[in-house]
Amino acid sequence: MKIDVLTLFPEMFSGVFGSSILKKAKEKEIVQYQTVNFRDFSDSKHKTVDDYPYGGGAGMVLKAQPIFDAVECLKEKKASSKPRIILLCPQGETYTQKKAEELAKEDHLIFICGHYEGYDERIREHLVTDEISIGDYVLTGGELGAMVVIDSVVRLLPGVLGNEDSPITDSFSTGLLEHPQYTRPADFRGMKVPDVLLSGNHQHIDEWREKESLRRTFTRRKDLLEHYRLNDKQKKWLKEWEAEKK
Amino acid sequence: MKIDVLTLFPEMFSGVFGSSILKKAKEKEIVQYQTVNFRDFSDSKHKTVDDYPYGGGAGMVLKAQPIFDAVECLKEKKASSKPRIILLCPQGETYTQKKAEELAKEDHLIFICGHYEGYDERIREHLVTDEISIGDYVLTGGELGAMVVIDSVVRLLPGVLGNEDSPITDSFSTGLLEHPQYTRPADFRGMKVPDVLLSGNHQHIDEWREKESLRRTFTRRKDLLEHYRLNDKQKKWLKEWEAEKK
Repeated sequence: MKIDVLTLFPEMFSGVFGSSILKKAKEKEIVQYQTVNFRDFSDSKHKTVDDYPYGGGAGMVLKAQPIFDAVECLKEKKASSKPRIILLCPQGETYTQKKAEELAKEDHLIFICGHYEGYDERIREHLVTDEISIGDYVLTGGELGAMVVIDSVVRLLPGVLGNEDSPITDSFSTGLLEHPQYTRPADFRGMKVPDVLLSGNHQHIDEWREKESLRRTFTRRKDLLEHYRLNDKQKKWLKEWEAEKK
Repeated sequence: MKIDVLTLFPEMFSGVFGSSILKKAKEKEIVQYQTVNFRDFSDSKHKTVDDYPYGGGAGMVLKAQPIFDAVECLKEKKASSKPRIILLCPQGETYTQKKAEELAKEDHLIFICGHYEGYDERIREHLVTDEISIGDYVLTGGELGAMVVIDSVVRLLPGVLGNEDSPITDSFSTGLLEHPQYTRPADFRGMKVPDVLLSGNHQHIDEWREKESLRRTFTRRKDLLEHYRLNDKQKKWLKEWEAEKK
């Protein structure tokens, strides 16, 4: 997979691309990263990338020209590909694991990261294929959003995660939040591990984990249960907890 | 504000803490960042930080001891403070702008970032004050989540954003998504700016912006309207669009 990032702050990416899973994926040649400063594509004398908004108002707006030209240059370099061109912005669709799985099937992703400013609407309408928001909060730029999307996508690519790295039971992949986990010592400053986990009885352990996973989802993220298919045992537990709450 | 980050990958933060708004906030002495590798606090001979889960299963679990000791050391160094101790994890509450505003009032934040692994439950139960998830997707570690929370909080601190950086009309702060923005040229490769924005009639421009902001929210994020107080004009527009859809 080829990943290009258009940004005015390429240096923001060095630490993240150079560590952990993203670094390993590059070393294994599963993915190639490139950051492109789209200021270099500005056709104006002073290499400006933004201008005042038509109609007035505070703030600046990123011009269409440098971003259109930068994207076209990247497309030409890899002519075979039909890249997904992804704009990070608060107005985008809310990012989910399902979208990560969809993007992981592509062979070329181009990310456009604005900073402080708005985007000229013609970029949205005529250039990008996807607008993504990573959550309902305000960030200074699109860079952190791009890193989040890239991390979540790259770790899904075949060969990237070794067995030693594999997540225990990923929340969001199973549909329930993960059950509590404990490791040694069994008593840490008087705080103890539940007896069942030390019992060696795997049937009891599995049932405890299933129940605690459901309980955590019920108490913290009830919304996730709307799309989850409960078995009979789980339905019984939920009824008990609902009754306790009254 | 003092911000400490516990992580096994301190180098991931250099690019982000050293750029843009986060860098400026540090230069203005509004915020201090410190990354702490909690491996340094492990009391085991080989400086291990994780171990197998009690009860069996794949993956590893971060031990309580190194993280408890690292947090206690940070608390002692700044004895006056009652820090918020924030765990980044998929099981946490979903992060929102409201939470960012809440955290911006604190004077000391400590972030705990796991990587690949689960956390020993005793960390959640007896050490942390907040568990945060930045969205419903799986990331390799808590580091990107910490960066997202830090960026969204620091930009709210008084004196950090100058006027030149101030967001146009932040989505999520007003409750609606932002209206489209355009800048020069009025005709870019045949793609034109709407006439109203070139008209100079500010009443028309304001009304167009209000309408397009509502329209974008209606078509993309109808869920945001549940908590939004509509005025009579907005109610009328919504009725028209609902009718068009039928």
